Amino acid sequence: MRQERTKTYIYGKHALNEAINSRPEIIRKVFLSPEIEDKDLRDALKRLRIPVAVIKTKEAGRMVGQDTSHQGVIAIVDSYNMLVDFSDFMSELKPDASTALVILDELTDPHNVGAIIRSAAAFGISGVLIPPHNQSPITGAVVKTSAGMVFRVPLVSIGNVNYAITRLKDMGFKVYGLAMQGSRNLSKETFDGPTLFVVGNENKGIRQKTLELCDASLRIPMNPRCESLNAAASTAVVLYQWSANHTEALKTRKE
Amino acid sequence: MRQERTKTYIYGKHALNEAINSRPEIIRKVFLSPEIEDKDLRDALKRLRIPVAVIKTKEAGRMVGQDTSHQGVIAIVDSYNMLVDFSDFMSELKPDASTALVILDELTDPHNVGAIIRSAAAFGISGVLIPPHNQSPITGAVVKTSAGMVFRVPLVSIGNVNYAITRLKDMGFKVYGLAMQGSRNLSKETFDGPTLFVVGNENKGIRQKTLELCDASLRIPMNPRCESLNAAASTAVVLYQWSANHTEALKTRKE
Repeated sequence: MRQERTKTYIYGKHALNEAINSRPEIIRKVFLSPEIEDKDLRDALKRLRIPVAVIKTKEAGRMVGQDTSHQGVIAIVDSYNMLVDFSDFMSELKPDASTALVILDELTDPHNVGAIIRSAAAFGISGVLIPPHNQSPITGAVVKTSAGMVFRVPLVSIGNVNYAITRLKDMGFKVYGLAMQGSRNLSKETFDGPTLFVVGNENKGIRQKTLELCDASLRIPMNPRCESLNAAASTAVVLYQWSANHTEALKTRKE
Repeated sequence: MRQERTKTYIYGKHALNEAINSRPEIIRKVFLSPEIEDKDLRDALKRLRIPVAVIKTKEAGRMVGQDTSHQGVIAIVDSYNMLVDFSDFMSELKPDASTALVILDELTDPHNVGAIIRSAAAFGISGVLIPPHNQSPITGAVVKTSAGMVFRVPLVSIGNVNYAITRLKDMGFKVYGLAMQGSRNLSKETFDGPTLFVVGNENKGIRQKTLELCDASLRIPMNPRCESLNAAASTAVVLYQWSANHTEALKTRKE
């Protein structure tokens, strides 16, 4: 099951440059303010035969929101092709000890989703799995917070979190839920095989049935004055610790 | 130099409960929707003699923004007394090997500031130092993202980042700047003495003069496909790694 065939408005020069460099085929149209004189950018768009129009202030507000600072650059990208289908992803996946994936279990804050994708890129994660319901889709705000990393990390469209977990377990993945009262201390884990991290909703955490599917739950050691970390902060910490045991994932390699 | 004497609107039941539990003296007034029937909350407000008024929809929008989900709970807190003055903080500070502080060098995104304060609480940091200019103050959005941890971690109002760093160096603190091209690998550091972490602006990083004052700059090992992490994510990772070397900071102690 794929993300619905809709358009997503991305904004900002950095986001557009990332899309041009990594996924030019999904860019449908670009709107530029007349003040944008960037010759390289305009040449690249011409070379790629991407239609360019002039930004109109009123339209821009309608496309990305009145308060969004788009810096005179907005683009329509094809959401349908931004994500890869789960079965296609699985058929090409050849997991080894340094393969880790992240699955989002109903995260609603685009800032968190964007920051998690950026951390996944930084720590050599092989894919971020995203369900279709009760989950922030890849919006312009997600693209911005990810610093354009949505175009570099494979994003995988899944139909159902529990089904995806079961399939990955069958393939040899060990599944860790990030939970407040996790039974395993993160700093003691070695992550010897293919690993899947499940990140839960900002308020409710991981759903019970999903938590039951996990092989273990992970706890980040913290001071008792604080009950929990922000979802994106805890994911960054967990992926950092995982990568400390898998420095080969921090080297350039074919995705 | 203190944050200006203004009022800050905080919102949401969780934020108000944290303020009541940790800093009741700074709450000036509370606005509740008639639907809020929480007897414990109403009793606590009565016991503390905090004035309570009924929320009016239009006023609420003016106080916290039209799109903010305040869940029927808004409070005015005294910003002036939310932060402790730098000289007062310094006069009581008795640093040892497990003392670490974080200084914010012109962070503008309230989500980042809130998430950093929450991570500081989680990893046993003794204070977060906040300059007065070009820096997100402690707004309602910061309080919300911090999950109320603004009321548990000492927040210190500084007049000038470089002056504060110099004073802390005189006191024996070793100063680390979090930088993309840092010279020291985070995972190799042991942090043997009192430590100060400098977090720079989301786009520009740490200012040059400030970076020159740092004893060292810290690099988080990451995959070359990604240039940098989100400011709050990298702070979480650094504080986690620091706390792994200072597990005593993760125990309850008198702040």
